[in-house]
Amino acid sequence: MSLLVVGTIGIDTVETPLARRDDVLGGSAVYFSFAASYFTRVSLVSVVGRDFPTAFKTLLTKRDIDLSGMQVADGQTFRWTGKYHKNMIDRDTLEVRLNVFEHFDPKVPDLACNANYVFLANGSPSVQRKVLQQMKKRPAFVAADTMNFWIETAREELDALVAELDALMINESEARMYTGERELMCAGRALIKKGPRCVIIKKGEHGALVITTDGAFFVPAYPLTAVIDPTGAGDTFAGGIMGYLAAKQFLSRENLRRAVVYGAVIASYTCQDFSLDALQRTTRADIDARYKELLEMMSIPS
Amino acid sequence: MSLLVVGTIGIDTVETPLARRDDVLGGSAVYFSFAASYFTRVSLVSVVGRDFPTAFKTLLTKRDIDLSGMQVADGQTFRWTGKYHKNMIDRDTLEVRLNVFEHFDPKVPDLACNANYVFLANGSPSVQRKVLQQMKKRPAFVAADTMNFWIETAREELDALVAELDALMINESEARMYTGERELMCAGRALIKKGPRCVIIKKGEHGALVITTDGAFFVPAYPLTAVIDPTGAGDTFAGGIMGYLAAKQFLSRENLRRAVVYGAVIASYTCQDFSLDALQRTTRADIDARYKELLEMMSIPS
Repeated sequence: MSLLVVGTIGIDTVETPLARRDDVLGGSAVYFSFAASYFTRVSLVSVVGRDFPTAFKTLLTKRDIDLSGMQVADGQTFRWTGKYHKNMIDRDTLEVRLNVFEHFDPKVPDLACNANYVFLANGSPSVQRKVLQQMKKRPAFVAADTMNFWIETAREELDALVAELDALMINESEARMYTGERELMCAGRALIKKGPRCVIIKKGEHGALVITTDGAFFVPAYPLTAVIDPTGAGDTFAGGIMGYLAAKQFLSRENLRRAVVYGAVIASYTCQDFSLDALQRTTRADIDARYKELLEMMSIPS
Repeated sequence: MSLLVVGTIGIDTVETPLARRDDVLGGSAVYFSFAASYFTRVSLVSVVGRDFPTAFKTLLTKRDIDLSGMQVADGQTFRWTGKYHKNMIDRDTLEVRLNVFEHFDPKVPDLACNANYVFLANGSPSVQRKVLQQMKKRPAFVAADTMNFWIETAREELDALVAELDALMINESEARMYTGERELMCAGRALIKKGPRCVIIKKGEHGALVITTDGAFFVPAYPLTAVIDPTGAGDTFAGGIMGYLAAKQFLSRENLRRAVVYGAVIASYTCQDFSLDALQRTTRADIDARYKELLEMMSIPS
């Protein structure tokens, strides 16, 4: 197994100014692994309740995602209900029920303990670190996501996690909050000082700024003409990046740049419909075509 | 004369969270022509009052900017006072005194009536159109800037102006307001339908999205580690674009892309100090070096 992800599997209810969907498949590890599955085999470590629909499970196994690390616990699956503002960016979380996720204790299956690429989706930094402790050898590349809640309530644990990472993925507002720096270049450099060799600052519709130990680069978001539901965009962005890198098994400066473009492309498909609906209609050929299109939009002749 | 600009010359008072400067040189036509002067000779059409300091005039003539179209009228020079919020993006206009600008009637000097490249800085669309009527022949490339005020109060005049343009430069929020489209690709396409072959949507620190009749491309903002005062960034962005194009005298797809990168580079210098202070310390060699650096940050190996 080349790629391991640990995060949530959830059942979401999402409302946008134009539509609403009840009880759709969601969760960070779900979005991530679906995106990464275009490039490599993914092992998903998470927990669901007894109520988790077989249809949702099938959706993942059809993508050849390894669910041997998906625990099934007594109780209900993690649930999230959110409502997007008119700008389709800001959102209010109307309800979170952790359910079986409240006592989630990730157990990495034997085969996945040798994964070279690991993604720790947003979650408690102490749980994220627990995953790393189960690895049989130091993976080639460990990346993690975090959020304002952990920056505010678990900064020491988060610092300890970040020190162990190769890459931190973080929203622009969270990068500013974590470092106290207003300019993203400064925030990125301050985060690099905490340990990772790469900081991927997510700017939503404005793309991403990537700061590494030896420089910086930009990738724009693919410019959609209609955004239906941005839920999962960040996790599929991460999934595209990590999936591409894990498939290459070679972390060059060039491959990292290509990986982030693939991440942006897959994230754009995610926004085109609710849940995984648009991605389910998307082939690797579609992704490669949009990848070329995005590259063309970024190219400046010398 | 290859490039003509019509816009304001002003005396600004600017307050940021960290500092304040009183009575510094400003105005759209000033910022624009200073930026464009790195590439070509610019003819500046505007009006000042009897109080306009000789030192400010010298600052422009030293850059070989043609001031034969700068009227001197009885009264005081245009004045603007603004205060930036903590995010260094949003700002409040504390005071505007139009002064001699209230009755500004632009007169394009004879030589400049043959300019091939024309920039109409933000202003009343009917005054902007008056400038075009004075041209002896249809210029090769006419660009204009506008703002929310004209979209709200003079939409018909603005539509008539936009129909005559080759390029419209507009902020993202204004592009949305003008078209009613939330997604910038849709807003850009709606604006293209009004006439111009190119719409340059300015996104401040997130760069620019350019939509043309045959596609779209992105240019990021150069990532500064310290922003001192963003006043004039948009006008120097335009100045870099138009100056580069006017120097090339050849509007290819490639030159337009290069021009927008040059615009982003010059705008970044503008933000590094108040008024024209940072640009005054900047050489063409500095600009070329940062241009290369920004290209590198945008390049994805194929």
